[in-house]
Formats: sequence, C-alpha cells, structure tokens
Amino acid sequence: MTAGKPLLLPSRRSDVPPFYAMDVLRSASALRAAGRDVLSLCVGQPSIGAPKLVRDEAARLIASDIIGYTEALGLPALRERIAQYYRERYGVNVPAERIVVTTGSSGAFLLAFLAAFDDGARIALARPGYPPYFAIQKALDLEAVPVDVDQSTGFQITADHVDALCFQPGGLNGVMVASPANPTGSMLPKADFAALIGACAAHGVRLISDEIYHGITFGKREHSALEFTDDAIVINSFSKYFCMTGWRLGWMVVPQNLVRPIEALVQSFYISAPTISQAAAIRAFDCTEELDQIVAGYARNRDILMEALPKMGITRFAPVDGAFYLYADVSPFTNDSMSFCARLLDDTGVALTPGVDFDARNGHSFVRISFAGSEADTADAMRRLQGWLRG
Amino acid sequence: MTAGKPLLLPSRRSDVPPFYAMDVLRSASALRAAGRDVLSLCVGQPSIGAPKLVRDEAARLIASDIIGYTEALGLPALRERIAQYYRERYGVNVPAERIVVTTGSSGAFLLAFLAAFDDGARIALARPGYPPYFAIQKALDLEAVPVDVDQSTGFQITADHVDALCFQPGGLNGVMVASPANPTGSMLPKADFAALIGACAAHGVRLISDEIYHGITFGKREHSALEFTDDAIVINSFSKYFCMTGWRLGWMVVPQNLVRPIEALVQSFYISAPTISQAAAIRAFDCTEELDQIVAGYARNRDILMEALPKMGITRFAPVDGAFYLYADVSPFTNDSMSFCARLLDDTGVALTPGVDFDARNGHSFVRISFAGSEADTADAMRRLQGWLRG
Repeated sequence: MTAGKPLLLPSRRSDVPPFYAMDVLRSASALRAAGRDVLSLCVGQPSIGAPKLVRDEAARLIASDIIGYTEALGLPALRERIAQYYRERYGVNVPAERIVVTTGSSGAFLLAFLAAFDDGARIALARPGYPPYFAIQKALDLEAVPVDVDQSTGFQITADHVDALCFQPGGLNGVMVASPANPTGSMLPKADFAALIGACAAHGVRLISDEIYHGITFGKREHSALEFTDDAIVINSFSKYFCMTGWRLGWMVVPQNLVRPIEALVQSFYISAPTISQAAAIRAFDCTEELDQIVAGYARNRDILMEALPKMGITRFAPVDGAFYLYADVSPFTNDSMSFCARLLDDTGVALTPGVDFDARNGHSFVRISFAGSEADTADAMRRLQGWLRG
Repeated sequence: MTAGKPLLLPSRRSDVPPFYAMDVLRSASALRAAGRDVLSLCVGQPSIGAPKLVRDEAARLIASDIIGYTEALGLPALRERIAQYYRERYGVNVPAERIVVTTGSSGAFLLAFLAAFDDGARIALARPGYPPYFAIQKALDLEAVPVDVDQSTGFQITADHVDALCFQPGGLNGVMVASPANPTGSMLPKADFAALIGACAAHGVRLISDEIYHGITFGKREHSALEFTDDAIVINSFSKYFCMTGWRLGWMVVPQNLVRPIEALVQSFYISAPTISQAAAIRAFDCTEELDQIVAGYARNRDILMEALPKMGITRFAPVDGAFYLYADVSPFTNDSMSFCARLLDDTGVALTPGVDFDARNGHSFVRISFAGSEADTADAMRRLQGWLRG
C-alpha cells in the first residue's frame, strides 16, 4: 500500500453478525474432510433430495431448452400452479398475478423489506428467531425491534405485543411472524393469528408472514396469513417441505399494490429466478404423497429427541410443533452455547447450532438441534450426546 | 376495505423505474404467443444455450446428488477454477479466497453496493448505462451520480471526471465502470483504465468494475481492473460469454477486507448460489473453443448491422467494440424512442429497446439493438427496419 493512500473500509451496514449455523457447518465439513465421523444436526436442510418427478423435469429441460431468463415475476405456469396450491391446501383464492417467484425465500425477504419499508422503519420480530431477518434489516437500514418470546405466549408475537409497541415512541411499521418458527418450532393458533392480523390492520402495520415450514407439522394445523387478510406479504419456499434446498427457489404472495414495485425491483435485483428450478418445481406439487413420507420420518426423529433428551437432563425445550428443529435449554450444562457446541463437535463429531445465533441475549444457554437428517444419525447423535454429557 | 383502516403503501425506495427492455420483451412474447412473427433484438441474451459439457455435468448432478446448499462463498472447486481463469486469461494471480460466487451478476451488484457503501454514498456511473445500476442504488439509498458520456471520452468515465467529481460538494465515494459497456459497446483502453484506477486510488474512491461482457469483443483487447489493482470490486457473469443466462450464476473478486463482510451478507441474503449451476459452471471453462465460435457469430451479426444501418440513414452509433449491442442515434426519425420502439414492434414484429432505458436525459433519440441472436434473424430484422423507415 502506498503511503498516504486513503484506506477503503467495508460499509458500516455490512457489519452484520455471521449466521453461526453456517460457520458450524463449515467446521463440521472440515472435520469430515479430515476423516472424522461427523453427524450434522446443525443446518436446516432435508437430507433427502428433490422428488424424482422434479429431477426428471429438470433433466428434460437441460437436454432440450436454451434455459434463458424467465418473466421477472416467474414462469406463468408455475405462478398458476402455486395459486392452485392455495385453493387446494388452504381454500383461499389468490390470483396468480399476486404471486412472485423468487430466488429462494431469501430473495423474497429482500424484496419484501425493500418494497414495504423505507430506511428507519421499525419491524418487530420474535427473539429467538431466524438470524438473517436481523442481518437483512440492518443492512437495509431498517430497525429490528426484537420481542423476547417464551412459553408464556407460545414463543410467538401476539396482538398485545403489537398494541404495546405501537404506543411506544417511534411506533411500529411492520411485524415478521413465522409459524412454524425457526428455531422454536412454535406455531400460531388460528385465533391468535387472527388477533395478531387484526392488531396489525388496526395500527396500519405491515405483516410479513414467513410460511417456509408449512407442510412440516406434528399434529397441529398450520395457517396461512392469506386465510385472514390480503394485506400481508406471505413468503414460502421450495427448500423445506419440497426438499429443493440447493435449487434456490421460493415464492411470495403480495398485496396487489406491491406487484408492480416488486416487479421493477426484480428486474434490477434478480432479472429472474433460476429457470431450471422454476420449470422443475411445477412438478413438486404432484409429489405430496412422497413428501409427506419424508415428514413422517421427521416425526420419528422428533420422537427420538423427545425421548432421549429428558433422560440426559435436558428437560426444557420449545414446543416442536412444526419445522425440524428442537430448541433446547442447556443451562444445566453451560452458559456459553458457542463453546459448548465447539467442544461437542470436537469431542464427538456431533454438530449442533449455538442458541446465540437466534437470540443474542438469552441464547447462551440454548442449542438448536435439527432433526432433518436420517433416523439412524439422529439416534446415534443422541447416544453420543448422552455419553458426552455424562463424561 | 374497512373505513378508517390505514392504507399500506409501497416504500418510497421501491419506486424505481422499470427496466423497459424487460417490458418490451414481455410485449414481444405476447405478440409471439398471438401468432405473430417476432424478431427479438431487445434483450441481452445469447440465443444459444450452455455448452454440452455444462449440460452433461448438470444432468449428472441432478441424477446423483441431493443438491443441498453450498458454502456461502461458493463451491471451492469453482472458486479455484475461476482463480485459474484469471491466471490463464489475464496473467493475474487472484487467490480463490477472494472470489465470491453469486446468483448472477445481479447478486454481485447487490453485495458490492451493500458491502462497500453506506446510505447516502455518491457513486458515479456512465450515462447511458445499464439501468439496474441506478435502480439498485436508489433502492439501497445510495446517490447515483450520472456522468454524461459521449464519443469525446469514448463513452466511458475518465480520470478527469473522477478528479472533477471529487472536488464537487458531496465528493464521491465510488465509481462504476463497464468495459465492454452496455448499451454502448465501448471499451476502456489500457492507459485510460490505469489512469481511472489511479484517480480512484488517489481520492479514496472505490471502483466497481463490471466485466460481464469480457470475452465478447471485436478486435480490441479487454482489460480487467485486477491487472491494475487489488482494491477494486470486479464483477463477472456466466450469462454472456458462457451462455448460461437462466442458470443465474456470476462471480465477483473482492479486496481481502471485504471477504468476511460479504460472506456474512451472503449467509443472510442468499445462503448460496444455485448448486446445479455452480457445479456445472466448472466445466464452462473447458468450452472456450465452442464459445469463441459463438462470438464469431456475433461478429458476423455486427457486420450485418454496421453495413445495413447507414444505408437506412442511421449513421451515428457508439463504438460497438464489445458486448452484443449497437446503440444507435435515431434522431433523424424520432425524439420519442419509447413510442418509436412500440410502433416498430407493432408494425414489423422487430423488438428493439428504447434508449430511455439507459439514459433518461438523452435516450429519447436512441435505440439499443441486440445482436446476440441468429444471423438470419439479424439480417431479417434489418430488412424489416429498412422497409419500415422508408415506409
């Protein structure tokens, strides 16, 4: 570097916390590459690939098509198929023109935050919650308003929270909810969801409903915000229930007056979502029987955890009503979940995610255990964890 | 709507202009669907698909892999292959760890603007220029500083421009250059590029170099900013030279101190780029012979345009040294390029892009003609245009 040359630094807004789950995954991959027997329960990714019909359609396209850009809002046939899914699954009519196909749900979050909020807008979100929500908001100059949730409100934001926040200085512009939620697995009961949406409507607060774990539930029925309102932004994904993680495809349903602003944003920010993934995903909706079998496997894994954990002294955890995570209080063993997870991985090859990823304030005594893997691996991980905690 | 319920509006920052090229494309597609014989010279997309080796690798992966997330910064093997490309093609050593695989170059622009600039930062960019630059900057609360360029500076921003802007009130935080440029096809000569980079370094201005049309040149040699500096952010794409448009894959080379901030942004904003595309793209570098043949086809199309246009009275256009666009002054015929393009499409089925897409101030008397299509279509479009202008 030349003397006196000005130093170019990263922006302040890019100083977002890393998503530690991804760092743990990298450590786990490095250990595995070094020959260690690693069990990865740290990442929210099905261990089974996309259904065969989806793969076949992708192969067909690759052999026969030039694979150019699609329309900015997505392939019309896919948008129609998603609209049909809302009619069949939720009994709600959503016109295809309000459906936006995105590059993963990640792309949908970016578009939602940009289209709905200007800089400085205040958006409530549950803590613990999905870390990228916080990071995206910081990078886009939004003000995340964390709402500490626990069993008293079912680990979810309630209408009362919204009422209270709207009367605070600065007020509130938006609310993010996720049901089922990551990392807690908690779900909003129908009446609570309706009340929350009512509170948002009364105060002119925009609701963003993260529904990416829909389809992965264990007894309770999940509800879409679209059952109650057309004003919410609903976000979903092909990565979880549909097992298409690496295909990077999601969608959103948006209010009519956001369609054109979002289309213009997509033209500049994305051009269009991956074409092979879009064309293939149309077939995913024909595979629900196969996909429900995979969910049945998650349910067996969940039973393994819920039986094994109390025996080793881990007795307090969030509901596990949906998604494929168990968020466990490990305060009997540690108040430093980062080093707890690092030592566990190093000693046993079991990779969990430290709670600080999801909750910077209270997460030091929590871990998230993903049970999206195989039954054998889940059981093996529990045996290793039990042995280690006894050790 | 309930009486008194507050109305939820789109954000101010999402009020970005549409990318008209995409709207023209939609009109053209609609006409084609209605049975019209449409010649699309309006979109920057090769009419030939990805090389066979790339397709074969994609098919192999789809048949055999679960297609999960990759590392946030991209598949290590792809990052290594890109580093090798810089050694082979430009003779520069770039460590793979400074290479970030992105979801198209669109994803790279987002990351570059977020990582390098805080809200209010002033970034110079050539006018005419690629419209999404302006839109992304507006949506991210950056201040685009358009620099009107013409033949006097080879349609490029110069060191003198940077010097002048740095002494203006507000100063300058960044410069975007593209060589070859869209829509002008202009290229920065080596000495001018070096001088521009020197000016940026002297003033502490961050340079972002859009190199997505590298490989598509007609006689002149393109230069990477990496030949002159490690401080620039360099952006490239698999969409143009490599013909992988709909695969949505690009990359960036970033200064060392931006690697970790960008990794954290990717974890939140993308998770990772499409996996099938990443794995398949490794093979694209083995296909340069096949790809250079496609560029030879563009050169023939370029000859067709440069011979035909003067005969119909279109005698002034930007250099066409690279990329696959000809930016033509049509002021003898119109001062409203939007309606000119709409009438041309309606009357003849030939789709061009209005200059206002690229230059809100002077673009009303320009059109962009893409010559990435087939030779037959290019020649046919010129015949129809000539007949129509004679009208």
